[in-house]
Amino acid sequence: MYYIGIDLGGTSIKAGLVTKEGDIISKVSASTPVKEGFEGILKRINELVEEIVTTTKVNKENIKAIGVGVPGVCNEEGFIYFATNLFWTNVPLGKRLEELTGIKVAVENDATVAAVAEYTKGVTAQTKNSIFLTLGTGLGGGIIINHQVYSGSHGIGTEIGHVVVGENFYDCTCGNNGCLETFVSATALVKYCKKLLVDHKDSTIFKKVNGDLEKINAKIIFDCAREKDIVALQVIQRMVHYLAIGIGNLINIFDPEVIALGGGVAAAGDVFLEQLQEEIKKYIYVKSMNVTKIAIAQLENDAGIVGSAMYTKLKF
Amino acid sequence: MYYIGIDLGGTSIKAGLVTKEGDIISKVSASTPVKEGFEGILKRINELVEEIVTTTKVNKENIKAIGVGVPGVCNEEGFIYFATNLFWTNVPLGKRLEELTGIKVAVENDATVAAVAEYTKGVTAQTKNSIFLTLGTGLGGGIIINHQVYSGSHGIGTEIGHVVVGENFYDCTCGNNGCLETFVSATALVKYCKKLLVDHKDSTIFKKVNGDLEKINAKIIFDCAREKDIVALQVIQRMVHYLAIGIGNLINIFDPEVIALGGGVAAAGDVFLEQLQEEIKKYIYVKSMNVTKIAIAQLENDAGIVGSAMYTKLKF
Repeated sequence: MYYIGIDLGGTSIKAGLVTKEGDIISKVSASTPVKEGFEGILKRINELVEEIVTTTKVNKENIKAIGVGVPGVCNEEGFIYFATNLFWTNVPLGKRLEELTGIKVAVENDATVAAVAEYTKGVTAQTKNSIFLTLGTGLGGGIIINHQVYSGSHGIGTEIGHVVVGENFYDCTCGNNGCLETFVSATALVKYCKKLLVDHKDSTIFKKVNGDLEKINAKIIFDCAREKDIVALQVIQRMVHYLAIGIGNLINIFDPEVIALGGGVAAAGDVFLEQLQEEIKKYIYVKSMNVTKIAIAQLENDAGIVGSAMYTKLKF
Repeated sequence: MYYIGIDLGGTSIKAGLVTKEGDIISKVSASTPVKEGFEGILKRINELVEEIVTTTKVNKENIKAIGVGVPGVCNEEGFIYFATNLFWTNVPLGKRLEELTGIKVAVENDATVAAVAEYTKGVTAQTKNSIFLTLGTGLGGGIIINHQVYSGSHGIGTEIGHVVVGENFYDCTCGNNGCLETFVSATALVKYCKKLLVDHKDSTIFKKVNGDLEKINAKIIFDCAREKDIVALQVIQRMVHYLAIGIGNLINIFDPEVIALGGGVAAAGDVFLEQLQEEIKKYIYVKSMNVTKIAIAQLENDAGIVGSAMYTKLKF
């Protein structure tokens, strides 16, 4: 029996045929036809499914389910409340894809399926309770409780990026102020870096971007931090401070075995992980029990395909 | 089959014989001999169990389990990491009480057993996912996920009072700054009220306490708010602001059916509940889904007995 995992992003759609152990047998991809709207994207996903069936010669009856990881919020029926990058609001992706393919479909948030990928064969494997945070443009979260995906009573939970942890100098895209993602995402790092650079014309960051501040990204900040640039170090320090608060909050609420960090920012774990682990200790309520492991996620580009496929295994 | 529920507090111990439906058949109580330490309190609990058995003439074999709600943090084996008001650190309450009574014992945090009481016959009854917050001297939390008590992987979760949500003008007893309980507990209200009174000598609160600021308590603040005293209203407004952030955070993480508010502060819900519900809307990430019910807890003084008894039913 096989599963198909679909990683639906704002720029590309990746699809793969996956074994019940979470191994990818074959994968295909295509650009996301965002301008063609829901129907166009739906059609493209169906074409990828057909392509997998054709190229692998797998019998369709041997495909138990299709899982789709989406950059948005959806309920258990695969109804998507919104997916900002796709310009979708209230679309019945699960139902329509099931009709088109004749295969059972499960839809979940992309951070949640990445959590399932880590749970299947990454740093949270076999742990009873774990949390996955993906630090990229925003901050996404996935929660595994008692070996099962937790998404809340109506599918709108695990929005850990929008937990308010303080006051910030700019508002979040959601309209509030102080959301965790406005302190720790790649976007947050760049914004704070630009703010600091106003008073630090001697920073090496200027040289790296040839004076063009629009070229600053998280990777450049981490590179400069490795070279001990004072602005880059300050940016990282602030990120570590708030990430420690955010993770401390999660430990005091969930007390999980592992909290895994994925996404572009986490890939620079060498720069901040040790400092972060030290800082988290301050926020753990039961000081004698510093027992939650903080780890960098292991699965990278394939997490979306593997996770969405394995999510259907947990669900059906 | 019956259960015994023990509500262990810093000043009194209440015990009751409880049916499997959660009805109290008989209850007894005694003062908590805090000065006699763990052994003295343990002995007193055992005496209360014996008293129940004697007065009700129940056959000990018909008592399925004893549940104890404690003002502290403990693990699944009933080992208590600490219980500040009892001056306990690392005591094996569950094991010792089982040896003394010959009956199975389950120990849990008092806020968690209160959550179980509400789940059994209160405002969260029959809901799949719910959170209980008790607003008193501090802020305690209890979490029910998938119809089961959630306490984390090592029993140190659900410490919702120590979720950091901002910066405060005084530090929390835990050593950190900005814990939710320092904004919304009865203690927090009194501290902020005193701070405001420095610049508001005309407040009616001065009259209510005959000029003795040490007499200010949450009840007086709520009474004065009902009389539209400007200081009292400001104190409540700040509480509502941060409680909305705290509850909004919980909704964005857990998306539960119900969040129940118990404890002394919640008893004054008439003053702030409507305002709170309005304020929470701002913090819900999926704006179109304002679906979590915010309700005042129904069980009052008996919540500890009923909840600890019914907790054993969920556990064993």
